Amino acid sequence: MAFYRYHVFFCTNQRDDGSQCCSLSGAGPARDFLKARTKALGLAGPGGIRVNVAGCLGRCAEGPVAVVYPEGVWYTYVDREDLEQILQDHLIGGRPVERLRLPD
Amino acid sequence: MAFYRYHVFFCTNQRDDGSQCCSLSGAGPARDFLKARTKALGLAGPGGIRVNVAGCLGRCAEGPVAVVYPEGVWYTYVDREDLEQILQDHLIGGRPVERLRLPD
Repeated sequence: MAFYRYHVFFCTNQRDDGSQCCSLSGAGPARDFLKARTKALGLAGPGGIRVNVAGCLGRCAEGPVAVVYPEGVWYTYVDREDLEQILQDHLIGGRPVERLRLPD
Repeated sequence: MAFYRYHVFFCTNQRDDGSQCCSLSGAGPARDFLKARTKALGLAGPGGIRVNVAGCLGRCAEGPVAVVYPEGVWYTYVDREDLEQILQDHLIGGRPVERLRLPD
């Protein structure tokens, strides 16, 4: 069994030149929201869900992006409703959210 | 096919209280070294290897730690020889390095 059932990484990179990147699209607050939700539902921690910040994930043009491992499912998102759907459908229900999913 | 064949995350967290954490054990330079090695060997990028920094991965007492997805293989490391072995044996050869591996 994996150390975390789901390990989510949010790109929260900030570019030095101020050009388009995930941090300018609310990546930090988005990660904080999802992390708080997993804690509130008692789902955070070993055997459960971990929500981390990460450096540039290399998909800037498609951002803001997050990736869910071990599946390697990539997402973009706009608002908290999107994040809540990822939580409910994918991280709890086991079904990736196709409408938010990025191509592999 | 996954966007990255191997996606490596180094915990580079720094605790506010200065207590033991991965960043105090050389996590930043370790990540920089492995990232540079993948670039030098032409292995970095989509379809290849991505080496990222991440926030606290939650295994502080076992640190410094890094995790390789999609397998979810966790490592600790001491020096560049350890990182080079992870690169050669696991990321290139496909065989996890058991002597550096942490329990799931």
